[in-house]
This record gives sequence, C-alpha cells and structure tokens, in this order.
Amino acid sequence: MRKVKIVILGAGYGGLMTATRLQKAVGVNEAEIVLVNKNSYHYETTWLHEASAGTLHHDRVRYDVKNVIDTNKVQFVQDTAVEIKTEEKKVILENGELEYDYLVIALGGESETFGIKGLKEHAFSIVNVNSARQIREHIEYQFATYNTEIEKKDERLTIVVGGAGFTGIEFLGELGNRIPELCKEYDVDYEKVRIICVEAAPMVLPGFDPELVNYAVAHLEKKGVEFRIGTAIKEATPEGIIVGKGEDETEEIKAGTVVWAAGIRGNSIIEKSGFEAMRGRVKVQLDLRAPGHENVFIIGDSSLMINEEINRPYPPTAQIAMQQGETCARNLAALVRGKNELEQFKPDIKGTVCSLGEDDAIGVAFGKKMVGSKASFMKKMIDNRALYMIGGPSLVMKKGKFNIL
Amino acid sequence: MRKVKIVILGAGYGGLMTATRLQKAVGVNEAEIVLVNKNSYHYETTWLHEASAGTLHHDRVRYDVKNVIDTNKVQFVQDTAVEIKTEEKKVILENGELEYDYLVIALGGESETFGIKGLKEHAFSIVNVNSARQIREHIEYQFATYNTEIEKKDERLTIVVGGAGFTGIEFLGELGNRIPELCKEYDVDYEKVRIICVEAAPMVLPGFDPELVNYAVAHLEKKGVEFRIGTAIKEATPEGIIVGKGEDETEEIKAGTVVWAAGIRGNSIIEKSGFEAMRGRVKVQLDLRAPGHENVFIIGDSSLMINEEINRPYPPTAQIAMQQGETCARNLAALVRGKNELEQFKPDIKGTVCSLGEDDAIGVAFGKKMVGSKASFMKKMIDNRALYMIGGPSLVMKKGKFNIL
Repeated sequence: MRKVKIVILGAGYGGLMTATRLQKAVGVNEAEIVLVNKNSYHYETTWLHEASAGTLHHDRVRYDVKNVIDTNKVQFVQDTAVEIKTEEKKVILENGELEYDYLVIALGGESETFGIKGLKEHAFSIVNVNSARQIREHIEYQFATYNTEIEKKDERLTIVVGGAGFTGIEFLGELGNRIPELCKEYDVDYEKVRIICVEAAPMVLPGFDPELVNYAVAHLEKKGVEFRIGTAIKEATPEGIIVGKGEDETEEIKAGTVVWAAGIRGNSIIEKSGFEAMRGRVKVQLDLRAPGHENVFIIGDSSLMINEEINRPYPPTAQIAMQQGETCARNLAALVRGKNELEQFKPDIKGTVCSLGEDDAIGVAFGKKMVGSKASFMKKMIDNRALYMIGGPSLVMKKGKFNIL
Repeated sequence: MRKVKIVILGAGYGGLMTATRLQKAVGVNEAEIVLVNKNSYHYETTWLHEASAGTLHHDRVRYDVKNVIDTNKVQFVQDTAVEIKTEEKKVILENGELEYDYLVIALGGESETFGIKGLKEHAFSIVNVNSARQIREHIEYQFATYNTEIEKKDERLTIVVGGAGFTGIEFLGELGNRIPELCKEYDVDYEKVRIICVEAAPMVLPGFDPELVNYAVAHLEKKGVEFRIGTAIKEATPEGIIVGKGEDETEEIKAGTVVWAAGIRGNSIIEKSGFEAMRGRVKVQLDLRAPGHENVFIIGDSSLMINEEINRPYPPTAQIAMQQGETCARNLAALVRGKNELEQFKPDIKGTVCSLGEDDAIGVAFGKKMVGSKASFMKKMIDNRALYMIGGPSLVMKKGKFNIL
C-alpha cells in the first residue's frame, strides 16, 4: 500500500503547528509528511516590530525549523513555492516540484499597499526577518549620518509610520524606547527627532475598546509620537510622503524613514494558482479546506473566516493560525485513516494584547481589560505560550521573554 | 600683573598632552589656560579603523576631555575654531572669540583627496567618531539590504579601500575579522563578499620593512583581501570607482562601499589664517613655533618636520604629536617665566606597529622586527600607553585594551 503524501507549505505559526501536531498524530507507516519553507528558520511575525526598532535582536525572533520537528517523521525541504497545480496535485518549487495527496497552504500574508504610489519603492514593511533588520539598520544609518553632514538635514531624524493598527502601534511603542538610546549612541539631540503616525481611518486600533485606545494614544504621545489620524498617504517619495489635507490639498512630510504597517493581504501564490480569493485570502470551509478542493487546506493569513457575531472577517492573527494548525492536523489524520467526517474549526479568542514598548501594553485577556505592566506581563506570557505550543519548554527557555518587572 | 593667557586649540593627542603637562608645570597665578575643542570628548584617532569596521564600539575610542584635565587650572570651551587672527592675537570661534598671549594649534589633520573627482561625495573617510560610525552603519546596512532584494546586487557586498598605507592596512585587518561576523548576522554567503584594496603607489606600506610587508599582504590575502597595487583611482561614483588600467584605459569597480584611507593634510584653518604651508602643514621651527610667529606653536598633523637622516618629513603620527605636546608644554612654561631659551624638539621613535586585526600585527619596536601575536600584544600596549600618558592608570583601566591572548 502506497503511503499518503502530505505536503505542508510554510513554517509559520499555522504550518509549524500542523507539522508538529501531525508528526504525533500519524505513524511513519501511515503518511509521508513534507514541510517546505523558504528559510531554514521560523520567525515570530508578532515580534518583528521589536527587531525592526532594534529593541530585540533578530536572532531572538527566529529559530531553526529542524529544532522543533521530528526529522524522522517530517522531511524538511528548504525551497520557495512558486505555484500550485491543483489538477495535477503538484507544487512547483523554485528548485523542483513536489506531488501530494493532501496539501496545506500556510504561506502567510504579504504587505498590502492598496496601490499607493511609490510605497513599494520608498517605504519599508515589517514583513520578515530580512525587512526587519533592514529597517533597524536604515534608522541607525540615518542617525549615524546626521552628525557627519555640515548642513544638518533634520528630516533624517523623522520616522513616519503608516498605519495605526496593531503592528503600527506596537512598532511605535518600541520606537519610544529605542529613540532615546539612539540619540545617546549617536550624539543626536532628542528634540530633533520626530515620530509621526499617519492613519487614513478616523481612529487608532479599530475594534479595540475606546478606553484602552485612549490609554495607548496618551502613552505614545508622551513618548513623543505625533498622530495624524484621518490622514491618507497619497504617495511615498524618496524624500518622505505626501498626504491629503482637506478636500483637494496635499501636504509633504519629509522623512528619512517611512515604514508601512497598515495592511496585510493573502499570499500572491493563491491567486496565481487559480483559487478564488479576496485580496489573496480564500474563504475556506469550516473544515479549513478550500471550496471545491477536497484535498487542499488553507490556514493562516491566506484563509478567510467570518466571525458571525459581528459579521466581519476574523483578523489574521498568530493565535488563530495556530488554532487552525491544530484542527488541520486532526482533520488530516482523520483523512489518512479514511474517515470523512471532519472537525469544524471555531476560533477560541483567549485575548488580545497590544504592546506599547518595554513595560507597557493594553489588552483584553480572559474577558478582562488591562493596561500597564500587568498587560505587558500578559503579552510576554502570550509570546512565550506560542513558543511552548510549537517547541515545548526547551524552546521557551531558549527564546522566551523573561525581562519581567 | 595680568596673567599670561594660553589658548590651546584641539584636544587630540598633541593638544591634550600640552594641556595635561602645562596644568602641572605652571601655577594658577602664572597663567590662564584655555582648551578649545569641537567636541566634549577626545577620540583615539589611531583606533578609528576599529570603530569603522565595527570591531570596537565607538564609545570605547573616546572619553570626556573633562576627565583628564584639571578644571581648576584649565578652562574647557566646547566650540569650533574658524580662523586665527595672528596680528590681533585672537581666535575666531563659531560662537565667540578668544584673545591669547600664546597659542597652540593642535587641530589635527584632514582627509586629503588629491582632487580626485567624486571622492568627497561618494567615498567615506576614517577621520573622526562621526565618520567612523557612519562607515560601520553603512556597511551593516548594505549587508542588511542584500537579502531584501529580489534581484541580488552582489556589488553591495564589495568594499573598496583606497590606500594601502597605515590606516588602509589596519582597516583591512579589522574587516578581515568583521566580515565573517556580518555574513553570519545577515545570512549572507561569505563567497559573495569582496574586499579590494586599491593603491596608486607601487607598494604596500611604504617605508616598512619588506619582509614585514610581505607578511601583512599574505595575511590579508588569506582573509580574502584582493590587492590592486599600482592602480590609481580616477573617480568615485555613486556605483563605485573608476581606476586607471594601462596607459589610457579605465576600469569600473562596482562597490556598495568606498572608504578613502590614503591621505592626510593639515587643517584648513592653517591656510585660511595666512600661515605659509604645504598641503596645510607648516614647517615649524625646532622649538615648534611657526616661523615669524613668536607666540604661536603648531604641533601634530598640521606641523611639518624633516627627518634629516632620510631627508623626508616625519609622518603625522600620534606618537610624535604627543612628544611635541610635552616639549610644547615645557616651552610655554619657560616663556611664561620670561625665559627665552626654548627646548628643541627631537622625535624619539620608539617603534611602529601596524595592526592586522584581532590578534595579528607587524612592526618594529625597540629596534626589533616582530609579527603575529607578539606584535599584536605590543600594539595594544602602545594603545594603552597613549591612554596612560594623558589620563594616567584610571583611564587605562576604563578604556584600555586587555583582550590579550
């Protein structure tokens, strides 16, 4: 009897959770499991704002995939998926191809620029380890260059953050800690630095409790962040950004650094492979399979599920991706054993905490609102929990956050 | 009786040596001593190649001037000298002016670009703390950017060092240590990195013993440095450099980083203030005074003295600047006390050691040639000695080099 072949694309939260659960759920004789990932490492997407600001080294936000998978049961292939040929049950990789009986697409999202001119060319995005360390180095280079110039360009010290959503706010919180350090490091006057958050929507952190949002804004403003809410970026240029002002006018904001943190869409491979999608996200069945594809699961940022209570999509979070991975692994194990009744996925939102820097945060956990060091502690526990779920206690010891006040 | 007013311009090796010796040699009632420096700190010019490569943090190569002067005896003014009006016995500063009875010009040298096109705009120079940390950050940014680009530009990872003199060779030695670290840090293939040393003269380290030079070249080549000796830089561009090739041809070398380490000239204030000079250096009298100026001493990189034995100028080194500072302080003390017979300066070259990175060097000390860890040890002792001479044992403890194998 030929073994069932399962291919998992992506070693992010969803893909790694699927792989680590599946390697326990099925025997070596039942299925051949292949995990494909672009890099040899997994990175904590939800920690990238720290690596980008330079408050946490990028090696702290990643670990080797091989450290958490059982290589006797899961074969790891380091390669990049280019296209999925569902009719042929085949994945085209940059350096080869893979056939599958069951496929899990867990490739993560991509930055959504909404067609704003110049954004791809002139703005950075907090999307992976490579981009995070480039942002950190870019900001440091601006500070290092400031004092070497005879005519000082103060705009070198201006950082524009596009978007006041989760990533934008967490990145601003880290900058609040990092900027005073950089000023000291490079003999730069703190008063010269500007951090400007530009958000097209009329509010900060949409969906969050207004009381918590007020706390966050006050905290960040105290650290020197200027908020330009209800202000749309029209264009990014080599010199900064151009924003809308009133009905027809525009205004230029000069800035040495522009970081776009305002949108995420599904992976481009989704549309390229012919799946029906909205902004790269496939509205999956409750069993996490793509409609019309009995053998293809889609989880994480490229999947779309509606929260019936508010009739809006669930946000693309690590929490949901990991829970999907658990369900996906159980459903795959069932299919391998010839069962056709699959489990229906239901997110269990334990809480959401948004960090505001080193020792402050806002959030809701177990139905309770919290702020300050208590929320910050909770945030670190959530970060450690993600490590624990995928790599057990040894990974928590190695990569966990213990800088608890 | 009006106190004699002595103004010392510059807190480099020569200026600080003059100030610290003078504060002991003359009483508070005899003279008023003012030390003027652009920055609040002194930096070790001879260690800047380490800060530029990133092997030593820039805060390790500097210390506060106020830590080593006796502020009861020496008044410290943080300001930049703009021009000296010798007829009026006055120094024009950016934010004021200072009158003097005796003046010490110890302002250090400047990078000499020999009129090579584009060098000022497109190349970095290892000249001060600001430029050193900018070079470090620039190189790191190139490495950080490499993996974010879809089309890899290998030339980002090419570093051209212009000049195979002392600074160029020492910088190459540090790069030899630093590049493997950067490759690891930014997931860059070591094979993709190129370090090219371009030197117009037909030899490396002119004036050094050929046996030692061969050792240095072999050592650096083993670390991956390519030498292009007898090759003149014709132009620096935003993409790299253009060098001469044969009689009339030129060749482009693309490089993300070009560091010019090939020449030093005297301070531009010298010519601006009407002193007769060659490339900004004044051929001073044996008592270190400028010819025709009985009350102006010039020491360090802006002074020129001939080594009669070989009929060539002494090189601008920290060793000579510090020795000049000692003589200068004694001569000032004599003048303050009305004595007109001044001491004649004679350099006492104890040795010269050129570092080749962390644990290797070449050099001559106490008349003996040495290489390897022995020479490297000697180099660190020379560095520590400079600290000791100016700031005593406490400065050695604070800033000294003790990473001795």
